[in-house]
Amino acid sequence: MSDTEFRPEARSPRGFQDRRARDLNAERRILDAVSKVYERWGFEPLDTPAFEFADALGKFLPDSDRPNEGVFALQDDDEQWMALRYDLTAPLARFAAQNWETLPKPFRRYAFGTVWRNEKPGPGRFREFIQCDADTVGSDRPEADAEIVAMAVQGLEAAGIPEGGAVLKMNNRKLVNGVLASAGVTDAGQTLTVLRAIDKFDKFGAEGVTLLLGKGRLDESGDFTKGAELAPAAIDTVMRYVTAPGQTTRGAFLDWLSDSFSGSAETTEALAELARIDAALKGMGVSEEQARFDPAVVRGLEYYTGPVYEAEIVHNGLDGKPLRLGSVGGGGRYDDLVARFTGERTPATGFSFGVSRLVVALQQLAWASDGSKGAESRGPVVVIAFDEAAMGEYFAVARQLRDAGIAAEVYLGRSGMKAQMKYADRRLSPAAVIIGGDELAAGTVTIKDLDLGREMASKLKDHDAWKSERPGQVTVPRAEMVDVVRRIIEGA
Amino acid sequence: MSDTEFRPEARSPRGFQDRRARDLNAERRILDAVSKVYERWGFEPLDTPAFEFADALGKFLPDSDRPNEGVFALQDDDEQWMALRYDLTAPLARFAAQNWETLPKPFRRYAFGTVWRNEKPGPGRFREFIQCDADTVGSDRPEADAEIVAMAVQGLEAAGIPEGGAVLKMNNRKLVNGVLASAGVTDAGQTLTVLRAIDKFDKFGAEGVTLLLGKGRLDESGDFTKGAELAPAAIDTVMRYVTAPGQTTRGAFLDWLSDSFSGSAETTEALAELARIDAALKGMGVSEEQARFDPAVVRGLEYYTGPVYEAEIVHNGLDGKPLRLGSVGGGGRYDDLVARFTGERTPATGFSFGVSRLVVALQQLAWASDGSKGAESRGPVVVIAFDEAAMGEYFAVARQLRDAGIAAEVYLGRSGMKAQMKYADRRLSPAAVIIGGDELAAGTVTIKDLDLGREMASKLKDHDAWKSERPGQVTVPRAEMVDVVRRIIEGA
Repeated sequence: MSDTEFRPEARSPRGFQDRRARDLNAERRILDAVSKVYERWGFEPLDTPAFEFADALGKFLPDSDRPNEGVFALQDDDEQWMALRYDLTAPLARFAAQNWETLPKPFRRYAFGTVWRNEKPGPGRFREFIQCDADTVGSDRPEADAEIVAMAVQGLEAAGIPEGGAVLKMNNRKLVNGVLASAGVTDAGQTLTVLRAIDKFDKFGAEGVTLLLGKGRLDESGDFTKGAELAPAAIDTVMRYVTAPGQTTRGAFLDWLSDSFSGSAETTEALAELARIDAALKGMGVSEEQARFDPAVVRGLEYYTGPVYEAEIVHNGLDGKPLRLGSVGGGGRYDDLVARFTGERTPATGFSFGVSRLVVALQQLAWASDGSKGAESRGPVVVIAFDEAAMGEYFAVARQLRDAGIAAEVYLGRSGMKAQMKYADRRLSPAAVIIGGDELAAGTVTIKDLDLGREMASKLKDHDAWKSERPGQVTVPRAEMVDVVRRIIEGA
Repeated sequence: MSDTEFRPEARSPRGFQDRRARDLNAERRILDAVSKVYERWGFEPLDTPAFEFADALGKFLPDSDRPNEGVFALQDDDEQWMALRYDLTAPLARFAAQNWETLPKPFRRYAFGTVWRNEKPGPGRFREFIQCDADTVGSDRPEADAEIVAMAVQGLEAAGIPEGGAVLKMNNRKLVNGVLASAGVTDAGQTLTVLRAIDKFDKFGAEGVTLLLGKGRLDESGDFTKGAELAPAAIDTVMRYVTAPGQTTRGAFLDWLSDSFSGSAETTEALAELARIDAALKGMGVSEEQARFDPAVVRGLEYYTGPVYEAEIVHNGLDGKPLRLGSVGGGGRYDDLVARFTGERTPATGFSFGVSRLVVALQQLAWASDGSKGAESRGPVVVIAFDEAAMGEYFAVARQLRDAGIAAEVYLGRSGMKAQMKYADRRLSPAAVIIGGDELAAGTVTIKDLDLGREMASKLKDHDAWKSERPGQVTVPRAEMVDVVRRIIEGA
């Protein structure tokens, strides 16, 4: 090789990670289970390219208002800027606008896809991750929002969250706008600042949000976030809305809202929409525990125009410590995003969840049932190789196991017996198959139960006791091999 | 929205495509089936990031020797160049070098992943596509190569290629080098030019390759490709090798080789390796039809050091026309790629196939069994919505179907009955469910068999005949709905 003098360092750029069997298997299970649910609701899969033209993506990332801020962008041969998608909604809007004439309407699609954000990476914060989105484009019915919520509830359950483990919290941007209008706030920029302040309620509580609605908030590190500069009376109105008393049912919440904030046209419209969502959710069998209204849910993105939703993990904590898992997904109605391209208002609504984030949450809460013993994925049965002349036999034995549906391999390194057993152990193989001269002559195989071996090794400290017991090793006729191995795998 | 004045055009950058249900379902079936096969051989899944540092990727793309040529590259915040992966081999080499100490050795992994090539797009030629790779790192045994070949054979069959529909063609770079050495060619640059000339055998035939081995070749468009400038005697030797007479078995080919080209140490080594591969393939049950030797297979990539393989579709053509599908995959041994990072020779071998390309080939050859009638994916049962007051009933009916595992949706647009039936038809829905006042009162549903409707519509030209027959419409009690719909879906 011509460039052996220069040795690049073997590492990845910051914020990017390699993913191995355990995480990938968890992701695939989610993909399979959620796809089944979404397709049962009539949603079809769609995959758009990683790249879009930068102008097609728009600038909707929260906290980034400079061009190309937050995205990975580069210029194509013809000097046009293209950028890697930062979510799956902007590409859907482009796709819908491009194909609107020929699509069945309403158009419903779901998508699993990698997205990229050019942000400062940190612990557990990556610049590449997988999202799963479902959206309905072309329906202005509140029932379409209800359907997205009902589907999200079922999807998250299918993904592995046990019943009662997650709640969909819903609200309506129009309601917030109505409350703000009644408080005299109509400026678009100020409204967005208020929305982002309310969005921080989970994080900073009522006190923090009150500061962010007023002059601003100084955090522990000394950074100052400028506030919305609302008048005290307006702050009171907003806070009275945000800190709504806990409601037992969706209906009770709507009653309270109607008593407390009725009046403006926008509020009336918002209440009517929420009432229809509530009715549709009942028809779809979504309980009060699975989906409820929450005035503090507003979502940080600018493009939402109506109902918004957020999925939150409900958990009492581990080992007595409360957990802050935050939201695992969210979405809402964005009636103007397709119009960016076409100029024609095209109503749309959708829900998105972070697949990688959900995998972490499931593993943390021990909700993940990944079929593996311990943290790693199971390895194959290893056929030990120590006689060059018998390689053909080894391959035939491995083939016999594979033909029976059992993962198996012939050891193909150059190390001795001991290293091969260690290799099988590290791969969490259930068993090793040994065929020496005696076995060859007798038509038998020796099978070592590595699961049992690992189990006993963790109990037996005394090496001699271990050796004398020779745990889990049997020699059987070749014809019985598959059955014995299968019993070991099944833990019988 | 603040930017309604500027309307971006709804389109994707050239060479990128949106993929819909039919292709995605085909890809997923391949992912599932091939993963199962590869895992049964003891290979574990691995996913590396889309981005690598440019120096870690190296410059191994064929026909691109300029820096960053052929890749999508950009500078990170710290000015370092990163690039999107153009294959899955370079990232594996980086991963293996980075984690070598802690990996079980030999390390076997497979990967499905998107790769990007910044090349000139054309019809059917994209800049983003999906590859599936399987590699063994850390084994110098020819048996590891044989295993990759055997696994590729099984993997392609699992992916949907019928038995006999593909052949793995194998060769050894060392053999080519030995032949070249015997012809007096030892210069590395000249050797690479010769390899790329041989690689064109399928495309240009013996005459074209002869030109490329000599002065060069002028193509139809007037472009001249400079040749390897071998002496006539050397060209004769190479061509005698490349145009080996057809052999009935792998063994017969090795005999011919040994008779015709023995002598050099490299040739002897190459022959010994191929003999061991042949023996191992026998043990693994790979037939002469599934894998054979072919001297014209050399693979275009510079980094191969030993055995190389190529998967070719075998098909007599459609409608009497022969098909040129070319190779759907290939690979080989690359013993120096990990050493780029570590300085230590780490033997490795692998096989890669293009998932998107395979999907196209399967569809073209009508080998794809995607469970759909016709070209598109099936839509859900559509519950027709024409009475606002009955929406709750519609949702309950859709839920009843979904709970029985049948994809179903309530129409959520604002159009009338006729447009709704058209919508269901365009989505290739098997049936529409209609609940009017009569049905509501009687506790029944009317089910329209849209499959039958489509079938009859294609036969009946006369609109009146069509109308009078009212094909496939029944009204049944609500409790019988699921059974009736299921019979329609099953085509019974």
